[in-house]
Amino acid sequence: MPMIGRTVWAIPGGHIPLESSGREPEHLSQEQLCVLNATDQDAHLRITIYYTDRDPVGPYPLTVAARRTRHVRYNDLIAPEAIPLDCDYASVVESDVPVVVQVIRQDTSQAENALMSVIAFPVM
Amino acid sequence: MPMIGRTVWAIPGGHIPLESSGREPEHLSQEQLCVLNATDQDAHLRITIYYTDRDPVGPYPLTVAARRTRHVRYNDLIAPEAIPLDCDYASVVESDVPVVVQVIRQDTSQAENALMSVIAFPVM
Amino acid sequence: MPMIGRTVWAIPGGHIPLESSGREPEHLSQEQLCVLNATDQDAHLRITIYYTDRDPVGPYPLTVAARRTRHVRYNDLIAPEAIPLDCDYASVVESDVPVVVQVIRQDTSQAENALMSVIAFPVM
Amino acid sequence: MPMIGRTVWAIPGGHIPLESSGREPEHLSQEQLCVLNATDQDAHLRITIYYTDRDPVGPYPLTVAARRTRHVRYNDLIAPEAIPLDCDYASVVESDVPVVVQVIRQDTSQAENALMSVIAFPVM
Repeated sequence: MPMIGRTVWAIPGGHIPLESSGREPEHLSQEQLCVLNATDQDAHLRITIYYTDRDPVGPYPLTVAARRTRHVRYNDLIAPEAIPLDCDYASVVESDVPVVVQVIRQDTSQAENALMSVIAFPVM
Repeated sequence: MPMIGRTVWAIPGGHIPLESSGREPEHLSQEQLCVLNATDQDAHLRITIYYTDRDPVGPYPLTVAARRTRHVRYNDLIAPEAIPLDCDYASVVESDVPVVVQVIRQDTSQAENALMSVIAFPVM
Repeated sequence: MPMIGRTVWAIPGGHIPLESSGREPEHLSQEQLCVLNATDQDAHLRITIYYTDRDPVGPYPLTVAARRTRHVRYNDLIAPEAIPLDCDYASVVESDVPVVVQVIRQDTSQAENALMSVIAFPVM
Repeated sequence: MPMIGRTVWAIPGGHIPLESSGREPEHLSQEQLCVLNATDQDAHLRITIYYTDRDPVGPYPLTVAARRTRHVRYNDLIAPEAIPLDCDYASVVESDVPVVVQVIRQDTSQAENALMSVIAFPVM
């Protein structure tokens, strides 16, 4: 298996919808950070959250074990501080080993869910 | 933090739906340009809008402060002229410092919202 | 303005939903090929459609004028032959000048529309 | 036609929704792996599935004939073992000839369908 991924990724379009409809937890409005660590070493991630009108916050630490994937809700990044709902943000993910990063937003603020996803931008 | 991003980005598939349903402003049909400037200098962007049947319009100036993100509705780009609703367009974003660009469309022209997103194509 | 784009693009996941709901034409189920030609020369495209169980069909010619964008429904590619509805396909777009390609699917086969989009894979 | 694609692709954000609504098969909740093989040789793929809390499973073999596309539901990858529904996973696709890979998720767990898609991350 070749070395899979990059060590820095960026996602400009972050936003967690304020409202939800439908059954929880599966229909909670949310934004997920999905990380694949296909290497044989644990990946230690540092996530930085950028805002429109104040300084960036972070790093948020996150570990993804060797040969595992981890799908984390941005809502669950709570230290150093939670990301406000209904607030524009961007995120940068740095890792000590190569990983691959995808973001998925589920919006259930209207009665039926909407989905969108991007592979994050591979910086280096 | 490494230098994050590129200085020219392109998005072919622009279109702002004519109609909306649901509560405004959060459910307004819209297309958002989401920019991350992770550098230590303000980014001065020049946006050009391409059409199907007439010359490109621009540049639309936009500043994204250092270490900030900015999510702007294409509807709010009004000088030199507003982008018509229900009209196919494409956009090119040029910046004097590296940035990362993502576009998000929300379509509420039917009763429930639909979402789509792409990371813009990194030109250089 | 730098040279924007590539000359060969690929999109594996083509499919035009069979059914539609809502007002036409804006809510017709469809897949759109969105091309930006930011150069000063007309782009002459040749589109090839790949299928699961028969030989590729094409080329479908398409011109995108200099400094214009063009958003074309795959349904409207009719010569050498129309693409069947509800049929898996893939497409390759070749151009004589650099362009940028994005694909958007709108599915209104259920009562409310769903959207998805990708920037095509830049081959060369 | 130039050599189209890459030989290793990664997709972090896999998840097959547990529930569906609407007519089957077209509205079954599903995640599709869409592969284009534009070369003149059959592509022999090996798919590895990564999980959050156990070792990767695979390889799942898949053949895509020369000059064909193939859109396969992850649900249909059953040997060495089926992928559980409602379970986070990631996938890596290796091929002996260059291919292009896109993933499409359709979620009909609420009454109306939602769609999302990404071009997989091209590893090499």
